[in-house]
Amino acid sequence: MNLIQPEWGWKKPASHVDTLRSNHLSKYDVSNTNAHTFRTHTCNELRVSDVDKDVVLCGWLQYQRINTFVVLRDGYGQVQIVLPQDRNDLKDILNDVPLESVLQIKGTVAKRPEDQIKKNIPTGEIEVIASDVTVLNKADVNIPFLIRNYNKAKEDLRLKHRYLDFRFPEMQHNLRFRSQFLMKVRDFLINQRDFVEVETPTLFKQTPGGAREFIVPTHEKNEYYSLVQSPQQLKQLLMVGSVDRYFQVARCYRDESTRPDRQPEFTQLDIELSFTTRDSIVSLIEHLLCHCLNIPLREFPRVSYQDAMNLYGTDKPDLRYECKITNLNHFRSSQSDTTPVDTDFTFSSLTLSKAADQFSNKTLAEYQDLAKKSYSGTKITAIKIQEDSSWRSKLTKILPDLNWEEFNKEGNVKQDDVLVVAWGKRAHVLSLLGAIRVQHHRSITSLLNSQPLDFNNPHSFNICWIVDFPLFLPLEDQTNGAIESAHHPFTLPHPEDEHLLLTKPLEVRGLHYDLVLNGNEIGGGSIRIHNSELQEQILRLLNIETSSLQHMIQAFKYGCPPHGGIALGIDRLMSILCRTPTIRDVIAFPKGFGGKDHLSGAPCDIAKEDKDYYHLR
Amino acid sequence: MNLIQPEWGWKKPASHVDTLRSNHLSKYDVSNTNAHTFRTHTCNELRVSDVDKDVVLCGWLQYQRINTFVVLRDGYGQVQIVLPQDRNDLKDILNDVPLESVLQIKGTVAKRPEDQIKKNIPTGEIEVIASDVTVLNKADVNIPFLIRNYNKAKEDLRLKHRYLDFRFPEMQHNLRFRSQFLMKVRDFLINQRDFVEVETPTLFKQTPGGAREFIVPTHEKNEYYSLVQSPQQLKQLLMVGSVDRYFQVARCYRDESTRPDRQPEFTQLDIELSFTTRDSIVSLIEHLLCHCLNIPLREFPRVSYQDAMNLYGTDKPDLRYECKITNLNHFRSSQSDTTPVDTDFTFSSLTLSKAADQFSNKTLAEYQDLAKKSYSGTKITAIKIQEDSSWRSKLTKILPDLNWEEFNKEGNVKQDDVLVVAWGKRAHVLSLLGAIRVQHHRSITSLLNSQPLDFNNPHSFNICWIVDFPLFLPLEDQTNGAIESAHHPFTLPHPEDEHLLLTKPLEVRGLHYDLVLNGNEIGGGSIRIHNSELQEQILRLLNIETSSLQHMIQAFKYGCPPHGGIALGIDRLMSILCRTPTIRDVIAFPKGFGGKDHLSGAPCDIAKEDKDYYHLR
Repeated sequence: MNLIQPEWGWKKPASHVDTLRSNHLSKYDVSNTNAHTFRTHTCNELRVSDVDKDVVLCGWLQYQRINTFVVLRDGYGQVQIVLPQDRNDLKDILNDVPLESVLQIKGTVAKRPEDQIKKNIPTGEIEVIASDVTVLNKADVNIPFLIRNYNKAKEDLRLKHRYLDFRFPEMQHNLRFRSQFLMKVRDFLINQRDFVEVETPTLFKQTPGGAREFIVPTHEKNEYYSLVQSPQQLKQLLMVGSVDRYFQVARCYRDESTRPDRQPEFTQLDIELSFTTRDSIVSLIEHLLCHCLNIPLREFPRVSYQDAMNLYGTDKPDLRYECKITNLNHFRSSQSDTTPVDTDFTFSSLTLSKAADQFSNKTLAEYQDLAKKSYSGTKITAIKIQEDSSWRSKLTKILPDLNWEEFNKEGNVKQDDVLVVAWGKRAHVLSLLGAIRVQHHRSITSLLNSQPLDFNNPHSFNICWIVDFPLFLPLEDQTNGAIESAHHPFTLPHPEDEHLLLTKPLEVRGLHYDLVLNGNEIGGGSIRIHNSELQEQILRLLNIETSSLQHMIQAFKYGCPPHGGIALGIDRLMSILCRTPTIRDVIAFPKGFGGKDHLSGAPCDIAKEDKDYYHLR
Repeated sequence: MNLIQPEWGWKKPASHVDTLRSNHLSKYDVSNTNAHTFRTHTCNELRVSDVDKDVVLCGWLQYQRINTFVVLRDGYGQVQIVLPQDRNDLKDILNDVPLESVLQIKGTVAKRPEDQIKKNIPTGEIEVIASDVTVLNKADVNIPFLIRNYNKAKEDLRLKHRYLDFRFPEMQHNLRFRSQFLMKVRDFLINQRDFVEVETPTLFKQTPGGAREFIVPTHEKNEYYSLVQSPQQLKQLLMVGSVDRYFQVARCYRDESTRPDRQPEFTQLDIELSFTTRDSIVSLIEHLLCHCLNIPLREFPRVSYQDAMNLYGTDKPDLRYECKITNLNHFRSSQSDTTPVDTDFTFSSLTLSKAADQFSNKTLAEYQDLAKKSYSGTKITAIKIQEDSSWRSKLTKILPDLNWEEFNKEGNVKQDDVLVVAWGKRAHVLSLLGAIRVQHHRSITSLLNSQPLDFNNPHSFNICWIVDFPLFLPLEDQTNGAIESAHHPFTLPHPEDEHLLLTKPLEVRGLHYDLVLNGNEIGGGSIRIHNSELQEQILRLLNIETSSLQHMIQAFKYGCPPHGGIALGIDRLMSILCRTPTIRDVIAFPKGFGGKDHLSGAPCDIAKEDKDYYHLR
């Protein structure tokens, strides 16, 4: 072997060309944010301590006044530039330059005159006396919308010109917060918990059951990939492969263009580990979130699925406000024990505290409409608790057997409350009252959502686990006893209930847990099935072809450890933490209604030759 | 507002159920790797200092001997378990348990007898005396391949049972190394350089030109997304939006199923920043890689595109070995200055050092075949430099005008070298000699590739920048003067050459740079066009419909800063750093030949109703 270090064909770059030049700013004390650029500071960086420094700033023309004062803005903030009286050359350069043009300004930092100090902006005590101004790129005079204190543009226009939208401080904050948050997630999982981040493929095989998956055709006829709705199968296979502490900030896909506020692609923090338990995963996530939110470690309360349904009429209750459902069934049967009772028929009430004044006949009509439309067969009425006892007779009309003593103890009604009473099929009654509970508190929650989050105030930040879910739910609109997974077909049945699988499947609980924050499901997971026979049995119960998951069943036969995991919805979590009205505000380039990308126009038509290549009609 | 902290419907988990129980191991001093599990240690963790500790281990049955010694393996390593002589109950449990079954073993750490100490494994000084053995999951007796020191399974079988493949130490190392490397990347870019990681969409609009993009049909007729081949447009729009320091570990897609060793989805480290220069980005990447590789900061040498082509016949030269192309053209014209010379016709030679012995007539025939097949019109011969001067007459036959004095000075030939001489169209001659240069060194490079990387030895780790690329290349198989981008249509022309755009476009250099490591292109980037008029002009020159990129042109009009960036191919880089023969060994679930997923069977056929829904034929 005759190996010699070759001589390099080095070519020194032409030094006079601006876009090629070396970083000539090393003489300045450049911070991290300015390294590898030709500016010395951002527009949010200069303070009184920088007075007399020579600086180079780059940014967008935010504002120009009496041909002397210029406000320069970048993604970090803004700074005032002053054109010296005698520098008509600089004034000429900036004359007629449209707002949002890109400028480079060299100058010297000076303290502002006392009467011009602005305490409300970080650079408000200084200004930069310009010595040199370069227009790096002139903007068009007609810009779709300007960057003012408040973004008034309609959302479609904002999405079409997302690059303008990014210039608002809110979007800058959201994107930077998201990046920092995910960095903390990785720091915790990798550096403090020895997890391994593994990138799993998104082009995979269609998953039976579950959400509709996008199809990706190939050049070969009848050969299609599917875009994964989650890395579920792949992370379980990692466990089988003894990659026992996995996570991924994973891109997932679902074709739900018909549903509002859904994105065709979204991000989930996907976690799986082996040799673990439900409580261990619950604890891991509590450690993780408290670390990322910079709050002392705490346990999140747990609510059973049954309690959540019975008390709040939903499996993702917003617990920032009280207000519970009361079951009135036992009042009905108390005096007629011998009559057989239809267990599915339920009387329940919801107490709306101090609502008598605001609760009109129109409100009731709305709720009755809701009952008729979405919860067929459910009746509903509302009774105002007033000084006279007329409300008592109204209630007795519905529940003739009411035991007043007991009701007073349980019903928790006070003067000026409104008692909403509903009766009908149990599941419908609970869901209806759950919906009314949310509806009634809409004004309170939107007020709460507009205020800064306070992690120590349960009215501001209220997180809980929902546990002990049923493993199966009756398949909607089916009366033949068909069932579907409450979570997904890989969830392990509760060991205490496994014997009921064949006889009473709907009574089997699953080892599934959801994380609910302020009424939003932000995550869910389970302990998984690791036994191939049990997996096959569950698939048969669900009427899913085992052949479609043969690779999983086979893998479980070759040494599959007990394992479990969870996935957190990052978009929703960021939206709550950033206090945005929609998840679109925490996604750089979200799709609009119906999956439309207003920026590029996608989805759109393609060339005929491409259609032919992929066998598209 | 009447908000009270609600009472929680807390349900204590059933404590006797193993999969539900709390992490009862807190009494042990559990390391990061074992937190949130029901083991105390991994199979690679116990040392002499742990003797007498009670431990709980989980893993796979690697080996069993004389019903006494059991080797337990997990993703971290292996450990020896001893079944005490008097514990027939434990021996019974393990009797007939197939290899690769999953076990939990409780026991006490003991020092091995001196004569049984194994110095070559980390746990070789201890063993665990078992007190309790649980079979967590019995494996099938017939397993496709076992986990031995060396993985002998064919690749298709390895991919089909990837979960078995993961159990080999090499795959464990590759996945963990990749995760750690990307963590270092993020630590550097976020914590030391203030970059923001932004997730950009993968469902976007088709990019004109470039690689073939996968199409994703929607339910609407003639409305298709395209899977992005890179976040190029999106990151440039972030720059327009003053998100001025962006990076992303980005999933990218290309439909190149027909090319070997390509993955339909791959990962690139995508970086872009504003107000920067070529040298600044070069420096940023040097800082980044030296940080991630834990080596002192160094500058990577730069080679101009012209030098790379002239000296090595390729724009991604492997510089671990010397061996350059010598241009012999001037020898041809030296004695006949008056004859007009076809500048495209070239005589060049490549000196293969000390190759006379191994270079057979068969070797030459192979190279001549290569010339005929791939570089039409190119002639090639080889001359062995031997003691007698017969080789001189051979060379003079080809180049009658050869000036021997000059040739001796430049040709750099020595006794026992082989001089490969080629002549024909310049581009073909250079490419052919470049291919022969690589081919001839194949045995040396495969030896080098099998040895540990030494960052300080240029024969082991040789990285360089290729700069001053041409902006355009002639479109292959076109003689009408049509051109295509050497990089992509967003690359800024070299300011010195911009005046040649209309007259001599092929002479315009672009501000494009590639990073080449050991003969592999591991990254490439450029300073981008930020002026909408220049962008439109370039698109017109490339014959690309401006309407297809209207959103970019429009964005550039609303205040686009000067900017540039780079993308590094993470799969290739990991493959080189992990010394794997293919990138598939550093990807958890790669596709096999033709984009086939051997594990799940994708791509495959889908239900007729899905085809109808998406208008597929």
